[in-house]
Amino acid sequence: MIVQKLLREDVGTLDITTLGLGIGSKSAKIEFRAKDDITLCGIDYVKSMMQQFDVVFTIFCKDGDNVAGGTLVLEATGSAKDLHKLWKISQNTLEYLSGIATYTKLMVQKAQQINPHVKIVTTRKNFPMTKELSIDAIIAGGATPHRLGLYDSVLVFEQHLNFLPTKEELEKAFFELKSNFMEKKIVVEVDNYESGRYFASLGADVLQCEKMTTDELRRCVTLKSEFPYILISATGGVKLENVDSFAACGVE
Amino acid sequence: MIVQKLLREDVGTLDITTLGLGIGSKSAKIEFRAKDDITLCGIDYVKSMMQQFDVVFTIFCKDGDNVAGGTLVLEATGSAKDLHKLWKISQNTLEYLSGIATYTKLMVQKAQQINPHVKIVTTRKNFPMTKELSIDAIIAGGATPHRLGLYDSVLVFEQHLNFLPTKEELEKAFFELKSNFMEKKIVVEVDNYESGRYFASLGADVLQCEKMTTDELRRCVTLKSEFPYILISATGGVKLENVDSFAACGVE
Amino acid sequence: MIVQKLLREDVGTLDITTLGLGIGSKSAKIEFRAKDDITLCGIDYVKSMMQQFDVVFTIFCKDGDNVAGGTLVLEATGSAKDLHKLWKISQNTLEYLSGIATYTKLMVQKAQQINPHVKIVTTRKNFPMTKELSIDAIIAGGATPHRLGLYDSVLVFEQHLNFLPTKEELEKAFFELKSNFMEKKIVVEVDNYESGRYFASLGADVLQCEKMTTDELRRCVTLKSEFPYILISATGGVKLENVDSFAACGVE
Amino acid sequence: MIVQKLLREDVGTLDITTLGLGIGSKSAKIEFRAKDDITLCGIDYVKSMMQQFDVVFTIFCKDGDNVAGGTLVLEATGSAKDLHKLWKISQNTLEYLSGIATYTKLMVQKAQQINPHVKIVTTRKNFPMTKELSIDAIIAGGATPHRLGLYDSVLVFEQHLNFLPTKEELEKAFFELKSNFMEKKIVVEVDNYESGRYFASLGADVLQCEKMTTDELRRCVTLKSEFPYILISATGGVKLENVDSFAACGVE
Amino acid sequence: MIVQKLLREDVGTLDITTLGLGIGSKSAKIEFRAKDDITLCGIDYVKSMMQQFDVVFTIFCKDGDNVAGGTLVLEATGSAKDLHKLWKISQNTLEYLSGIATYTKLMVQKAQQINPHVKIVTTRKNFPMTKELSIDAIIAGGATPHRLGLYDSVLVFEQHLNFLPTKEELEKAFFELKSNFMEKKIVVEVDNYESGRYFASLGADVLQCEKMTTDELRRCVTLKSEFPYILISATGGVKLENVDSFAACGVE
Amino acid sequence: MIVQKLLREDVGTLDITTLGLGIGSKSAKIEFRAKDDITLCGIDYVKSMMQQFDVVFTIFCKDGDNVAGGTLVLEATGSAKDLHKLWKISQNTLEYLSGIATYTKLMVQKAQQINPHVKIVTTRKNFPMTKELSIDAIIAGGATPHRLGLYDSVLVFEQHLNFLPTKEELEKAFFELKSNFMEKKIVVEVDNYESGRYFASLGADVLQCEKMTTDELRRCVTLKSEFPYILISATGGVKLENVDSFAACGVE
Repeated sequence: MIVQKLLREDVGTLDITTLGLGIGSKSAKIEFRAKDDITLCGIDYVKSMMQQFDVVFTIFCKDGDNVAGGTLVLEATGSAKDLHKLWKISQNTLEYLSGIATYTKLMVQKAQQINPHVKIVTTRKNFPMTKELSIDAIIAGGATPHRLGLYDSVLVFEQHLNFLPTKEELEKAFFELKSNFMEKKIVVEVDNYESGRYFASLGADVLQCEKMTTDELRRCVTLKSEFPYILISATGGVKLENVDSFAACGVE
Repeated sequence: MIVQKLLREDVGTLDITTLGLGIGSKSAKIEFRAKDDITLCGIDYVKSMMQQFDVVFTIFCKDGDNVAGGTLVLEATGSAKDLHKLWKISQNTLEYLSGIATYTKLMVQKAQQINPHVKIVTTRKNFPMTKELSIDAIIAGGATPHRLGLYDSVLVFEQHLNFLPTKEELEKAFFELKSNFMEKKIVVEVDNYESGRYFASLGADVLQCEKMTTDELRRCVTLKSEFPYILISATGGVKLENVDSFAACGVE
Repeated sequence: MIVQKLLREDVGTLDITTLGLGIGSKSAKIEFRAKDDITLCGIDYVKSMMQQFDVVFTIFCKDGDNVAGGTLVLEATGSAKDLHKLWKISQNTLEYLSGIATYTKLMVQKAQQINPHVKIVTTRKNFPMTKELSIDAIIAGGATPHRLGLYDSVLVFEQHLNFLPTKEELEKAFFELKSNFMEKKIVVEVDNYESGRYFASLGADVLQCEKMTTDELRRCVTLKSEFPYILISATGGVKLENVDSFAACGVE
Repeated sequence: MIVQKLLREDVGTLDITTLGLGIGSKSAKIEFRAKDDITLCGIDYVKSMMQQFDVVFTIFCKDGDNVAGGTLVLEATGSAKDLHKLWKISQNTLEYLSGIATYTKLMVQKAQQINPHVKIVTTRKNFPMTKELSIDAIIAGGATPHRLGLYDSVLVFEQHLNFLPTKEELEKAFFELKSNFMEKKIVVEVDNYESGRYFASLGADVLQCEKMTTDELRRCVTLKSEFPYILISATGGVKLENVDSFAACGVE
Repeated sequence: MIVQKLLREDVGTLDITTLGLGIGSKSAKIEFRAKDDITLCGIDYVKSMMQQFDVVFTIFCKDGDNVAGGTLVLEATGSAKDLHKLWKISQNTLEYLSGIATYTKLMVQKAQQINPHVKIVTTRKNFPMTKELSIDAIIAGGATPHRLGLYDSVLVFEQHLNFLPTKEELEKAFFELKSNFMEKKIVVEVDNYESGRYFASLGADVLQCEKMTTDELRRCVTLKSEFPYILISATGGVKLENVDSFAACGVE
Repeated sequence: MIVQKLLREDVGTLDITTLGLGIGSKSAKIEFRAKDDITLCGIDYVKSMMQQFDVVFTIFCKDGDNVAGGTLVLEATGSAKDLHKLWKISQNTLEYLSGIATYTKLMVQKAQQINPHVKIVTTRKNFPMTKELSIDAIIAGGATPHRLGLYDSVLVFEQHLNFLPTKEELEKAFFELKSNFMEKKIVVEVDNYESGRYFASLGADVLQCEKMTTDELRRCVTLKSEFPYILISATGGVKLENVDSFAACGVE
């Protein structure tokens, strides 16, 4: 279904250039090669798009492969009419998704050089309408999605706590939450050590440390001696340039 | 319809954190403020999303406005349940679209300082699935879409010409194309002056100069004295850093 | 969007009886009353369906309310044409969803009389196409969804383990799984005490005891003294008649 | 299209357990066997779902077959990744639809033992969102759908008659209805003999006797001597336990 | 939902003329007037389209009204941007649907002048994709749909009978059909009197006389004395020019 | 996707006649032959519909072919159940689309006999919901679409100009429009020579002469000596009967 949407968005109802030139029925061949060294993603979508047409194709690499610049990824033969419809959207899908996968892979590698147990997980802040594509890309790059949306994970943050002004109310609601979703880990977003310690003592499973300094992060990591089951994650402003310093703090 | 997809992608069927905390029916208020100076885009989508819920809201700025950092853009009151569903996807939509709009506006301004008649038009290489959102954003930033897809404009490029190996075939097909789509401008992608001059002489309406040096571009611009109706555009590698040097070449 | 599908499924393109009788424009009034004592669910869908038409309506109860038989739930006035389109599908939605909600509520009450901390969670084995409706109904009845689908929770069961025939492979994969989805609880389906103890020692967060006798279940519950953080749940054949005996075993 | 919805509802965008265990590319085999003696339904949907994946499968029985417990219904081989996506939703579809088909078949058999000409037809009161699945199931069980929705059949019931308070108005509208939909049988829901006799005399084609006692039903059946073309059906509270006593009344 | 499709088909993602002229935010007013005397249809769709925008409008006539040329049907005020999006598709919808409604009304009137009990029913041979629109139009014109599709009515024609080569097979299948769909009238397409008489004797409810001469039709109508309940309809080549001669044959 | 909609519109969920007769599993064969000499269109849709079923078929002609009456276009074998679902909608699609293609082809031929360089382009006034089908049909007939919708071409007409009451405003907006959409030809709808000359002098690329007499049209064509690049088109009331007299005026 997503494949039909990709094609419709780009091709619409007809390709007027190919129609106007009268070359639609000529037979043609296309090749996709990696421009640079990349972690490939999007080839499964391209495959599904090709299958919608009378096109014969061979795929040489798969999602997640590290592909050297110049490598032949796919070749296809068919009519000029069909191949022109497939050309740009296939190329575009491969470029965007491989771009995300490649960047993700670099972050994963850089972080794991410092701390081999660190994992990269990604937020739900993808470009709207691209969640499915983006998740495939970060998985190809070796990360996993942190949360898909509101429906799959429990994440308590400041906006929730505003509704629970007294300590009593907050603790009652927090206990209810743990009990209602016993099978989910309770993630709490905190922005300082004290707040982290407080929620750890209430039974939070994960402390998501939002935009902390690396010093503050290191203090939070020390909570693991007191609460051995707790997990410390860092969010906000993590990118390729600084992912190693975050990893060095001992977060997971 | 796009609005329903935006909500579904992020919210899915339920918000388990708000449900688990039992705070869904409390009344709440949210505000969106610009973090930095931006060209706003996305507020119409946010408005449509808000209208799906029992939420009272006021919008203070509109798409295309240049908004100073800190300015209040929107405020809304409603139940915590409804506002938590709206919060992240609204914020995310505003951030992505305003980001594109702001960057586009900067390019437009920089190019027009050099040459006030230059226009910025954008390719169809948006992130797949986001064409509708992306077009709104570049329009808010003062650009216009170059082509939406294969269905709305005639663009001849190398891959088409490969099917027409002899000069005779090419000129016959080109004449057919012009005649079939008399009401469309015929855009030809060229990568050097000679090729540009050849297509200009065949009656191309626009030469789209692909990845040329600024010297080569300047030569192409001189074709306008011979073919006064022709339009010269430059594509490939245009970004904020170099848009002024392209503009200085006299392209449109 | 689901509301449009509900209407389309039942009404289709036209109501030929009302058309044939020529009574479409007469003004009419409908009431919905609870036939028996129920836990109400579906009223939000009915509300959204009513809003698609020129109908004036008042809703007297909300989803999750315990409503005594005979209580007026909703009344609406409008044209016969509109009300006949709304009548059956509204009634049908309320009856099915309230039926599920009422049954769920009875199970929750019966289980919590024995053990107030027991929670009822529901599987993803709903009637295909009705997940969204069914989840609303069990929430109205006081339960929570155990897992929505493959995408939101980690559940290891026999079919997975078949792929990991040696102890070494299994433990390596299990460690990978925990590390890849650190923020998720790892649920393992087990069918005897020994298997339960083994996965507890590997770090499972939840043991889902499948079709065990109450004796075997009680043995599994004793694992909590050794693994204090572990959660024991029981699945398979739980219904209103026996939910209390499950609860009495000390499962959660 | 329904098949895509079934898969999406259960699988969503990814299967995190299989991904996390790293077993997705292993090759696997699944079998479906009937647990008990059933009338099979749903195998066509399962077939269509399997065809969406790179899975090789063989189907041994078809919708409507009476299948003994233990019989192999389908076997499939493919990657663990694909088969885990297919497993639960296929099983779930087969169980729900075969459940309805089996129950329907039992009712049909029981009723036809008493009166071989009796037919079982089903109302439009299916679980919302499942009409297409439910209709397939009752057809597999040997029944036919009574009406799909408001658009395919004419059924006059009390709520219509309220708009026609005088005898004159009612008879005029009834005549109009017959004339507007000459090609449809006019079904009237009645709850006593007198009312049935009255509509028979106006030219009703079918009397749908709603929640009548078997005595009252028998009186209605006697109308067939006076109105030989009329059809008598019984609705309301018909189930496996009592379907034979309804059949014994001579209804159709 | 159909309304969203109508708008999307015509407007797509943006109106480049209005955007390019920079007149989008000016306030504007549009009026729709009937060009000729028409039977109006489509106003409900136009109303729903208008409701998608910030437009204030008044509707002066309703579907099915006979409207004199020049009559004001609707007026609307709003921004030029919104009204230009609505203009053409509204006009187009009104023109196509009123065209069908007007033609239908003329046929109904002409036929009923000859025989007031004649009804016009329409086939399922509408322009593909327009069933919903077309049915609204013929109802506005005073006709009713004969069958919506394969799912709502029983129509036996030659292609079915080819599968039943012997008299025995045919009669057994016909009896099965009547019994399976007792609540439906059995319509049989026949092309001569003998065939009509044969199916009448088997219990057909309606004879649909396909492309018969008016003489042959008159012979078929005489079957009503022998089979008083039977209905005779004529199909094939019925148009405004000859509808009266069909009506004069006594068909219904 | 459109193919699924075509099937669903006609077939819905089931074919009750074939089901009721019990002939669904018999094997059958269908043939489509051209009734008259036609320009074929729709065969690609029929092919895609056939591919949804277990049907073996051969196609003998392709879209755009001129097919003599009686020619075999397609034959297919499969079960009666599948072929009855495909029969009517396939026939209906071929008849409507070939009807449009045939009429278009006749117009093209008649116009090009007078003036071989004339092209027929079609408006966006198709029957709502049928744009995709209609465009395929006119292309098969040798015409091209003039504009698909508001999004793909610039067409200025009276309703736009009303917003620009002074000459100054109009010229400023027109200049803006040309500059914003440099890559599009600017089409202006005019209804007399003076207006045509005025917009030609402003730089319009195409004058679309709306409902002009042939005398007035001829005057407009003379503008080409003064504005050699301008294109003159004629709209309004062009049909097969008069297309030659339009062509004789020298329009394009």
